[in-house]
Amino acid sequence: MLSTLLDNIFHPRSIAVVGASENLMSAGNWFIRHLLDYGYTGHIYPITTRQSEIFNVKTYPSLKDTPGPVDYVICCVPASGVLSILNDCTEKGVRAVHLYTGRFRETGIHDAADLEQEILQRAKEIGVRLIGPNCMGMYHPKEGISFVYDLPTDSGDVGMFFQSGGSAGEIIRHSALRGLRFSKVVSYGNALDLNESDYLEYFLQDTETKVIAGYVEGVKDGRRFFSTLRQGARSKPVVLLKAGTGASGAKSAASHTGSLAGSLHMWDAALKQTGAINARNADEMIDLMVGLCFLPPLYGKRVAIVGGGGGKSVLSADAWEAEGFSLPGLTKKIRREIKDRLPEMWWDWIGNPVDVSMLPQTAWTTGLTGDMLRMMAASPDYDLIVCNLTTDAPVGKDGLKLFVQPEVDQVMEVAKEGKKPIVVVMNCPPLGIKDFDDWRWRMIAELQSQFVAAQIPVYSTIAQAANTMSLLADYYHRRELLL
Amino acid sequence: MLSTLLDNIFHPRSIAVVGASENLMSAGNWFIRHLLDYGYTGHIYPITTRQSEIFNVKTYPSLKDTPGPVDYVICCVPASGVLSILNDCTEKGVRAVHLYTGRFRETGIHDAADLEQEILQRAKEIGVRLIGPNCMGMYHPKEGISFVYDLPTDSGDVGMFFQSGGSAGEIIRHSALRGLRFSKVVSYGNALDLNESDYLEYFLQDTETKVIAGYVEGVKDGRRFFSTLRQGARSKPVVLLKAGTGASGAKSAASHTGSLAGSLHMWDAALKQTGAINARNADEMIDLMVGLCFLPPLYGKRVAIVGGGGGKSVLSADAWEAEGFSLPGLTKKIRREIKDRLPEMWWDWIGNPVDVSMLPQTAWTTGLTGDMLRMMAASPDYDLIVCNLTTDAPVGKDGLKLFVQPEVDQVMEVAKEGKKPIVVVMNCPPLGIKDFDDWRWRMIAELQSQFVAAQIPVYSTIAQAANTMSLLADYYHRRELLL
Repeated sequence: MLSTLLDNIFHPRSIAVVGASENLMSAGNWFIRHLLDYGYTGHIYPITTRQSEIFNVKTYPSLKDTPGPVDYVICCVPASGVLSILNDCTEKGVRAVHLYTGRFRETGIHDAADLEQEILQRAKEIGVRLIGPNCMGMYHPKEGISFVYDLPTDSGDVGMFFQSGGSAGEIIRHSALRGLRFSKVVSYGNALDLNESDYLEYFLQDTETKVIAGYVEGVKDGRRFFSTLRQGARSKPVVLLKAGTGASGAKSAASHTGSLAGSLHMWDAALKQTGAINARNADEMIDLMVGLCFLPPLYGKRVAIVGGGGGKSVLSADAWEAEGFSLPGLTKKIRREIKDRLPEMWWDWIGNPVDVSMLPQTAWTTGLTGDMLRMMAASPDYDLIVCNLTTDAPVGKDGLKLFVQPEVDQVMEVAKEGKKPIVVVMNCPPLGIKDFDDWRWRMIAELQSQFVAAQIPVYSTIAQAANTMSLLADYYHRRELLL
Repeated sequence: MLSTLLDNIFHPRSIAVVGASENLMSAGNWFIRHLLDYGYTGHIYPITTRQSEIFNVKTYPSLKDTPGPVDYVICCVPASGVLSILNDCTEKGVRAVHLYTGRFRETGIHDAADLEQEILQRAKEIGVRLIGPNCMGMYHPKEGISFVYDLPTDSGDVGMFFQSGGSAGEIIRHSALRGLRFSKVVSYGNALDLNESDYLEYFLQDTETKVIAGYVEGVKDGRRFFSTLRQGARSKPVVLLKAGTGASGAKSAASHTGSLAGSLHMWDAALKQTGAINARNADEMIDLMVGLCFLPPLYGKRVAIVGGGGGKSVLSADAWEAEGFSLPGLTKKIRREIKDRLPEMWWDWIGNPVDVSMLPQTAWTTGLTGDMLRMMAASPDYDLIVCNLTTDAPVGKDGLKLFVQPEVDQVMEVAKEGKKPIVVVMNCPPLGIKDFDDWRWRMIAELQSQFVAAQIPVYSTIAQAANTMSLLADYYHRRELLL
């Protein structure tokens, strides 16, 4: 069965790195280093004739010379050497070879494409599955396997299949800053043998994976892929990023992974019938994953917005409405409670968004601003709560902290109850190195850390938050229809 | 003449803060503090009967008691006290009163709206111009006047008129991180007397202002505003952010500045005929200002893209094409030069975008990757150069720095020549407080500082860069037609 097969591949008891090297700029060096850094506990066999040890790990002149069986091979030798490596695999019981090796079909050279086919043929004959070629392979933190430096060593809910290893690495790294963690990620390049449908099927069945994300330049077997998506998207959310949708993009995809990219129009049409979520770019993909992993399902588009000054409130209303959300006014119950507690305010003046700069200071000091968030979260009139966190105000440092804290506390509390989706909009702009010492950006970074630790989605701009929530509301709506 | 009048208002020789206060959470405190912090050199007169000194500055019981003339009054007393302040103005030769004071028309209460009109009437009678009410007033770094803490004290090319002071402050702060500086900014709230057309006219004539930005919720005199825009946008770029474009947004705008917001459709149609640039949100406005201030005009949509790995190259091609750009292949001349220098590469394989991960290490060590940027910049076949800076790669710290440096050096050199627009895409994700100590994010922040110092536009995402450049290309094209 495919899922058992892939599960075995993802859990190798021993790994050989063929083309192991002392050169720090060489893949044959990184992959060994990663196994050590990330704490892989199986056997590591660096294969090279040049050194007897690499990072104090004993090397072997060839695959055949390793003392035990080899489950998984990371192949870093040039294309011309791959067939002979495959021949050596037969004796060692190798399950899968990850071909980091590139320069095949993607070069556009006939001989290279022919060699790729020969390799596939040979692998089939000897019963070895191939990941790649022309790819970064596997990131599996639980097993201590990685293809890039400095990714999280702890596991999480997201499984990813990516034709691009560089993009996968960058997305893992940036997602990690937002609190996401990964079950397994596979970068599969040219998809010569195992392809997107295999990985998708695996992740749909994998109990460690709750949310699936994929980056595809071309699809090998469209019928199988879309039918798997149709069935699968009912059980787990699948976010897909299609690359190579324009003329130059398609050309670029051909030279990257030898993929036939197809048009965006066809893709959009096919995807719409599956329940999968279409991400337009890497940033949108991360934003979606954050929402899918951290929020309860969003079943409507009535939003309650609190926080920020007048301009931000108006701009928020515009941005959320532009994404199809409605902003119901404050409920009678909320107005009544507020009037009781702060009779000096003209409460009919306050609407949704709640412009907190209109409120008297007593609203902050008595905790009313925070309580409003909680009342809105408890009301059946709103599907989603948004806090435009007050990180800029005319007041100085101490005043700002006084303003922001009640909002933070109540966001935390509402999120903890977990009944209604709540998201934070907090602008974390790009900083220069001197800004790292500035109290304001440090305060924002501290808040970011707190929200990430509490698994509360933070979006840097209003537009990002509104766009993401709109895509999620549409997704949950479509899923209801599919079920 | 209006421009002389406003110029005088922007250069007050003495400022009185009425409603001066020792309470750090009070506007009557901030405004005095700002004058001191930002280094205002004129006379400062805090007006209050409660203390004899505030921040060691002698106070006066009323405007009339100040020893010299008062050019500019910042009014922080409640609405009911404004008329009597105006009466005091007559004796002191006051040119303008900035009414920080709010709670007028925007509350929806008739009496408050009537009082507002009475104030306007009285101001007209005594020849005093009003900024506001319900606004933050003036940020004029050269004069040492500000309405928020911790903004830059040095001047720059951008002049802004904003109905929202909070948004203005946040935009100034975030723009400053990107290297922008401001000539003068005015937050004008309800626009009771001086309005958007007055400020626009002033900035169009102000020699210190090269780029104009405005945030408007409602327009007082549409005919005058759009005709001024039509004439003015030929001489200086004007970026406008229209708020209150949806139903809730319009409601929110009414309660914020008492504005009649009007529909987005009407706005778009009217703006199209003027040559001004429509920003959809605050982030887009900043991105546009960065491009307008730092780049030579962009007169076409043929883009050359260098940097990043395979996935990023494909995604870049898609994103730029989606914004209407074309990606011409490498020119014959460039191919020839590269073949001469690196005969071992299959150069026909390399296209535009240039996926630098395809290149052999010798391409980096011999400076070829950087030279490609320079060759593309020198070629008449491209209108715009984009560098997807390589800040994530499978190599470790030292390797990454080896990769990124040639790109940075060549970007700097091309930008210095100043002949062709060049922009950098570098992802600066939101960081948690612990990430401030990580070498990778520090490296990115250091690069950000270098680019900002060199006034090279950096965009955090590909989509942001492509969208901004598309808007700019359209703007310069329209301007050509208007001239």
